[in-house]
Amino acid sequence: MRAILLSCFLFVSVSVYSQSDSVLIRKLFDYHLTESNTYKNEEYLAVKIGGRLSGSEQAQKAVEWAQKATKEAGADSVYLVPCMVPHWVRGAAEECNLKAGKTNIKMAVCALGGSVATPAKGIWAEVIEVHSFDELKLLGTEKIKGKIVFYNVPMDARHIHTGSAYGEAVKYRGKGAVEAARYGAIASITRSMTLALNDFPHTGSMSYDTTVTKIPSCAISTLSAEKLSKSLKQLPKAQLFLKMNCTTLPDAPSFSVVGEIRGSEKPDEIILAGGHLDSWDLGQGAHDDGAGVTQSIEILAAFKKTGIRPRHTIRVVAFMNEENGVRGGKSYAEMALKKNEKHLLALESDAGGFSPRAICIDADENIAHRFQKWENLFEPYEIKIRKGWGGVDIGPLKNGGTICCGLEPDSQRYFDYHHTADDTFDKVNKRELELGAAAMSSFIFLCDKYDCHP
Amino acid sequence: MRAILLSCFLFVSVSVYSQSDSVLIRKLFDYHLTESNTYKNEEYLAVKIGGRLSGSEQAQKAVEWAQKATKEAGADSVYLVPCMVPHWVRGAAEECNLKAGKTNIKMAVCALGGSVATPAKGIWAEVIEVHSFDELKLLGTEKIKGKIVFYNVPMDARHIHTGSAYGEAVKYRGKGAVEAARYGAIASITRSMTLALNDFPHTGSMSYDTTVTKIPSCAISTLSAEKLSKSLKQLPKAQLFLKMNCTTLPDAPSFSVVGEIRGSEKPDEIILAGGHLDSWDLGQGAHDDGAGVTQSIEILAAFKKTGIRPRHTIRVVAFMNEENGVRGGKSYAEMALKKNEKHLLALESDAGGFSPRAICIDADENIAHRFQKWENLFEPYEIKIRKGWGGVDIGPLKNGGTICCGLEPDSQRYFDYHHTADDTFDKVNKRELELGAAAMSSFIFLCDKYDCHP
Repeated sequence: MRAILLSCFLFVSVSVYSQSDSVLIRKLFDYHLTESNTYKNEEYLAVKIGGRLSGSEQAQKAVEWAQKATKEAGADSVYLVPCMVPHWVRGAAEECNLKAGKTNIKMAVCALGGSVATPAKGIWAEVIEVHSFDELKLLGTEKIKGKIVFYNVPMDARHIHTGSAYGEAVKYRGKGAVEAARYGAIASITRSMTLALNDFPHTGSMSYDTTVTKIPSCAISTLSAEKLSKSLKQLPKAQLFLKMNCTTLPDAPSFSVVGEIRGSEKPDEIILAGGHLDSWDLGQGAHDDGAGVTQSIEILAAFKKTGIRPRHTIRVVAFMNEENGVRGGKSYAEMALKKNEKHLLALESDAGGFSPRAICIDADENIAHRFQKWENLFEPYEIKIRKGWGGVDIGPLKNGGTICCGLEPDSQRYFDYHHTADDTFDKVNKRELELGAAAMSSFIFLCDKYDCHP
Repeated sequence: MRAILLSCFLFVSVSVYSQSDSVLIRKLFDYHLTESNTYKNEEYLAVKIGGRLSGSEQAQKAVEWAQKATKEAGADSVYLVPCMVPHWVRGAAEECNLKAGKTNIKMAVCALGGSVATPAKGIWAEVIEVHSFDELKLLGTEKIKGKIVFYNVPMDARHIHTGSAYGEAVKYRGKGAVEAARYGAIASITRSMTLALNDFPHTGSMSYDTTVTKIPSCAISTLSAEKLSKSLKQLPKAQLFLKMNCTTLPDAPSFSVVGEIRGSEKPDEIILAGGHLDSWDLGQGAHDDGAGVTQSIEILAAFKKTGIRPRHTIRVVAFMNEENGVRGGKSYAEMALKKNEKHLLALESDAGGFSPRAICIDADENIAHRFQKWENLFEPYEIKIRKGWGGVDIGPLKNGGTICCGLEPDSQRYFDYHHTADDTFDKVNKRELELGAAAMSSFIFLCDKYDCHP
């Protein structure tokens, strides 16, 4: 049994990579762990610029910073790809209180991105708690009309990947308002998308459609959700006061930032790495996605410092507007199509700056299996290669035949911070961030060397 | 190529485990992620009891708490294994300043565990910075006599496992005082054992021998180490003031805590899981090793709640005095020998409550390879099984033929907190802690079912 496994292992080892690849990858990891600027850049972007929602002044500052940082990392050329972005503004902090007689309980809420405001005086209504869209439908207009619908659907803690739990529950954030409005609700409140129990409400995008009235929609912290649920059992007729001050301004001009090292042999074939430059407004966008942007930028520096002269054009893109529109990703893909650019592969980092666990290949089984031939090279760094998710910003490139890939960091802490005021620089561990950047550099190096064809 | 790998994989899958094992392991993970008390217990131990150095009042409180917690987790019987422990006390906070003319720079230091104090008035001396024991030897008595030796040896950031970097550098903490005293130094200062740059000094054990005078020995934070090194370049004749107020009292009586579920088929064969109950005094001992103790205790609860009736006796041990003497581990092994107890296997968790990455088998290649047959069962949880380190407390059992194993969590953040005032409950992520406990429960379940013989 062991003999079979061993011979199998040896065969893999010999057949798929040369000794020089492992030496070069070791050099890349050494660079990232000892000399890189990833953490310093992350600090600047998160702390000095901070939250940078599309259309904001901070987003514009981030564009300027990314140009400078990409240049300093060693890009031959740096340029902007324009896009028009949604311009949603939160306004003054939200207010939410449950009142019944002398009871007055403050709830931690935040408007969801894209929501309309309440009237300026706020709204008062009874709350009806539901646990699924089916339950909502069953209650129907009779029970819901004129009330505030409260989706109290916790993410399922049994998932090992927290992203899977998010994927299941996030429909109540995205579509909660539309579904509630169908039955005459005057607002919707969604339990925050997190497995943690704390008092940070998690914002995030929501959308309306043309079939129903636009009602205000907010997220409530998990602790407040528990409190609200408990209170409603005792005081089902209690009135909730909700005031949200957000507004949607006209679309604003903005940019994704591109920096590249031109390929020495095949300059017209592009290998891309990126993350998104915008973030939600509440925190500093440290993990989401300062991490991905600073990791991507550092790939250029790592190539320069370790003497890698890429054969293909290595392009780093800091995409604008992933959070509420993907306008950066879309306009980039449109530009690529228009210019007839050939993108062999795109790698995105947008799941936080945590210890890297895998490079995911968002392609069919055959292609994913092919890339797994490189897994031995990543074994010393405990990084797997497997079929999985690429990224939102690079998604629009997929139609053009680009192989899309994603860095998958350890997911346990991501939704503790995601879209909250707590997504701050101090939550980022320097080494975890750097290891992710090293994994990306190494993968891009191999893609360049072997024409994205292991 | 792929065909070979695939058939290999299928062969492994079919041959080494039954479907029921994966179902049971899934149940164990579900229990830990949704119902377990690990995090609550961790909070109590870290926050309510706090730092619990051997011999302290807190250590005694921890013994009492562990008895209660183990009983509540479902142990059939709970008892104590006595041991005499070193009783070192830090005393008032240390003082350390570098002075030259009007320059007066405060340095963050802490006495190393076991160190003698300075005279009550403190000491004043020049500092000599060294980067290795070889350099110390080269300088010799002439350059060192009457001075304070400053070991400024950073941990090597290039190691992927931070434990390897620690292993290389920690000799300057353990033996720095003895080596410096050989050449007439009057005190030694060691750069803290961490890859982080901050102002937390890291304590830890040091030892003397009978060949040289006992000199005071402390750790300096990495930021202060950088500051001191820089200052010494400008002011080589500057005098350092150092005052340490620690003392070693007579050995004190203490206990390890044992809780067990008696085996239904082979009650005289023991499978052990454990961590250590004591911690350093500066922080709350949350990761080191509140995590290991609370994870181990929860194995009993997980077995009860999922209906596993173990065939062997499952014993959980909260060892006393890992940090500065291993008296708990030693006295436990002595008791086992005296009672002629048969310990098939012992699993320790003492590397922090982070995302589990592997179960390490601290045995020869043959045995380690055998356990790897279970790796497929842990694949959904991204946990490897490999040869590696067991644990300090279970080490003394190894001579008796016990297979020693260790839970290996992600190591990146461990030395950010290790032995500092910053090792506090808020640094522990609930899910990461629970996943480690689930990995331990699952491994112990398999060991019990298959007589520790995959």
